[in-house]
Amino acid sequence: MKTVAIAGVGLIGGSFALALRQAGFTGLIAGVSSPRTIAEALEHGVIDREMTLAEAAREADLLLLAQPIGRIVTMIEDLAPHLGPDTLVTDAGSTKTLICDAAARFLPPGQFLGGHPMAGKESRGPASADGGLFRGRTWVLTRESSHPFAAWVRKIGAHILVMGPEEHDRTVALTSHMPQLLATALGCAVGAGVGREEQLRAGGPGLIDMTRLALSPFDMWNDILATNAEHVDEALRAVIARLESMRGHLRDGELRADFEEGAKLRRKLVNPVELR
Amino acid sequence: MKTVAIAGVGLIGGSFALALRQAGFTGLIAGVSSPRTIAEALEHGVIDREMTLAEAAREADLLLLAQPIGRIVTMIEDLAPHLGPDTLVTDAGSTKTLICDAAARFLPPGQFLGGHPMAGKESRGPASADGGLFRGRTWVLTRESSHPFAAWVRKIGAHILVMGPEEHDRTVALTSHMPQLLATALGCAVGAGVGREEQLRAGGPGLIDMTRLALSPFDMWNDILATNAEHVDEALRAVIARLESMRGHLRDGELRADFEEGAKLRRKLVNPVELR
Repeated sequence: MKTVAIAGVGLIGGSFALALRQAGFTGLIAGVSSPRTIAEALEHGVIDREMTLAEAAREADLLLLAQPIGRIVTMIEDLAPHLGPDTLVTDAGSTKTLICDAAARFLPPGQFLGGHPMAGKESRGPASADGGLFRGRTWVLTRESSHPFAAWVRKIGAHILVMGPEEHDRTVALTSHMPQLLATALGCAVGAGVGREEQLRAGGPGLIDMTRLALSPFDMWNDILATNAEHVDEALRAVIARLESMRGHLRDGELRADFEEGAKLRRKLVNPVELR
Repeated sequence: MKTVAIAGVGLIGGSFALALRQAGFTGLIAGVSSPRTIAEALEHGVIDREMTLAEAAREADLLLLAQPIGRIVTMIEDLAPHLGPDTLVTDAGSTKTLICDAAARFLPPGQFLGGHPMAGKESRGPASADGGLFRGRTWVLTRESSHPFAAWVRKIGAHILVMGPEEHDRTVALTSHMPQLLATALGCAVGAGVGREEQLRAGGPGLIDMTRLALSPFDMWNDILATNAEHVDEALRAVIARLESMRGHLRDGELRADFEEGAKLRRKLVNPVELR
């Protein structure tokens, strides 16, 4: 793997570039992005040079699409006519079915590998890129692969987890999209139900932690939820059903079983580094 | 205020004792507890000596009931016949209506002041007592009071928030009990919906944070939920209604308003020290 092209050199794409360098990658790292993002990425030493999408598709050994989901789908169709025989296309989109379906339609079998690095932070753009972002985190791949890219994912400190697109989307609806929607719903319910602002001081650290995700920008989540609506709907129904059943148990002391079940799941997450 | 008695010298009661000492209280601090807890509290220098409940009610200037809610209610009835004319009784129970009702029934008006220090940590018992536990935290009192106790609450670093018992219980159903029940429900839904354990690695820090509270012991929560069932039921209905409405918006992009509303509440919590 000598030439890596990254379309979208923001937080994720830029961090992958820096992580590759820190892990000893000596080849060329090119960026495909808007003039402004390219200038910023060059300034911060995130990429070596700019490429057009056509050049990247033709010349790179690996082309990582690190944009929002809708943009990735468009890029797959746009890059298809230019794809060289030795280029592997991968992506960093937060849902996989729509993207993998597009890849199956427009790219030769074997030249696309869906991916989802499960990492992030509040800030965005090339200036926020961080070579340590993926260390200890999970990087989902939609199939097994012996391409050098998989070895580099491990070298930058990520743990590969293989899941088909459907399995990925069903799982993250529960493990990632529910935490987000519950934080938002809790923020809304507290905001609507608390009369005077001073009462928020009756919150405690639990409320602080449980609403942190409510600060996530909707622009990022809109794509994610719209492209995983069926699984998110199913997960929401499961959570609502559980809350209804807990309501029924408020007065009979039978909430103990729910508490034990919830704690059991949480104990499986005790080693965050291993499980993230 | 020369003599303070604390019934239940576990985490909360013991921490109050240590906090008083650290803030310069030079009077006597006595404990009312089981022989085992008293021995442990004496060993860790948390209290000066043991008292019986009757002695404490008769002799102390302040008697803090720092036990589970059900036990506090029993204690109020038990201590009533022994209450000296100059003893103020207060408590640290997590719900206030039931306790204040019991106090109104058994104690002379003016000699009871309901309280709820909004602090805690995972460990329990006198050995976990921590003089800094209340620093920067909210201590709810059910009415204004000019008793020296209120001044000591401020001296140990807590912020007093005055709320009537009903207002307190309605508010904490949203700000404290909902975070707990949502963490438990999320843990249950993820545990029930995730097929193979390895899939939990597709969780990320959001899942870790949003299920932390699921580890809270049910024995503590049983009392809280059972004595606030009406408000918790109402709060659960509000959260469920919000989740249903968000389900309906999954495909039409109108979740933006929910995200903005949730973020708005969260931004009001930006200064955790001030608001805790």
